[in-house]
Amino acid sequence: MDEKFVPNIVVGRLPLYLRTLQLMHQEGRRVTSSQELGERLGISAAQIRKDLSQFGEFGKQGTGYNIEFLTDQLRQILHVNKVWDVAVIGIGDVGHALARYQGFSNRGFRVVLLFDNDPKKIGTQVGDFLVQDLSTMVTKIKEAGVQIAMLAVPVDQAQQVTNLLSEAGVKSILNYAPINIIVPSGVRAQYIDPVLHLQRMTYYLD
Amino acid sequence: MDEKFVPNIVVGRLPLYLRTLQLMHQEGRRVTSSQELGERLGISAAQIRKDLSQFGEFGKQGTGYNIEFLTDQLRQILHVNKVWDVAVIGIGDVGHALARYQGFSNRGFRVVLLFDNDPKKIGTQVGDFLVQDLSTMVTKIKEAGVQIAMLAVPVDQAQQVTNLLSEAGVKSILNYAPINIIVPSGVRAQYIDPVLHLQRMTYYLD
Repeated sequence: MDEKFVPNIVVGRLPLYLRTLQLMHQEGRRVTSSQELGERLGISAAQIRKDLSQFGEFGKQGTGYNIEFLTDQLRQILHVNKVWDVAVIGIGDVGHALARYQGFSNRGFRVVLLFDNDPKKIGTQVGDFLVQDLSTMVTKIKEAGVQIAMLAVPVDQAQQVTNLLSEAGVKSILNYAPINIIVPSGVRAQYIDPVLHLQRMTYYLD
Repeated sequence: MDEKFVPNIVVGRLPLYLRTLQLMHQEGRRVTSSQELGERLGISAAQIRKDLSQFGEFGKQGTGYNIEFLTDQLRQILHVNKVWDVAVIGIGDVGHALARYQGFSNRGFRVVLLFDNDPKKIGTQVGDFLVQDLSTMVTKIKEAGVQIAMLAVPVDQAQQVTNLLSEAGVKSILNYAPINIIVPSGVRAQYIDPVLHLQRMTYYLD
């Protein structure tokens, strides 16, 4: 990669900027400013300008940002100017919701593979696809060249399935099981656990 | 509150420590160290010691942390040594999964109220509870004294429902709608949007 090094925390804010710009675009807006973005996001305008300046010159002094142009640029930077195929592993309630989630469209992702090890679920249709046998996962993911997986299996299976996903060539795992998984070098993991967010708020409640 | 000020980023790591300690406890473990916690979490041992030292002395030099004791202390600090009642608003696929989510038990939360505005959903049972009419939400939440809500409504309704939740006395909102919501002073919001995590990883993919 010839991209220069950008701190991970800055990379993490870019999807927030992109999401807000896409909403503004839907609202029919054409131009915005770092001030307005900052107010919508609770981030300082200076921080937003600094973050964006790592990737180029996107706005002109006094005229703000062209929403469509900056959206396109951020989609390129985040590599979501194409659609990534995603596998969902574990079709319980959470996996089911992910398989049918409407929020991926136009944001760079589509679910194309579903796996579970429950004979009652294998072969059933969820959203647009059939649930396939977990024992065929490595082969099917390799064949399809899928690099992204969402993991919604029980805690005690999360590490084992993670190892299989790595073997299958998956490079990015979004883990919904409430446990930290160990991934090999070259594989990234992100986490979604609602309790972590809730506990972060109850700290401030009596 | 007579608690001293602790940076929000430190508060945000405590639920991770608690989750890991609870898993260790389930594994039958009695003692751990900042080194071991750090390896499981990808956080430095020094950072963990520094974070915990903000709240007291929990370990002895050379003997590590007693897992049960530190778990109890963290549960007290995060105010999850009791069970908080939670309302779920919007019983689509995501709300449905939240209403039935097994991962809340023993971590300080239980879902007790479900609301939707779809006549086809109102009155149906999801998990242990009936879906109630969104138009009765403010009254029902006030009556029950519920302070925590998970918001799984469509983007275009998220702000309006947020305003109603604030009116009802809710102090903590976990928002699953992919949009930033504006909350009044005294109300906190956290966000879950899988696309933000996925885009943060595709930045590193080709």
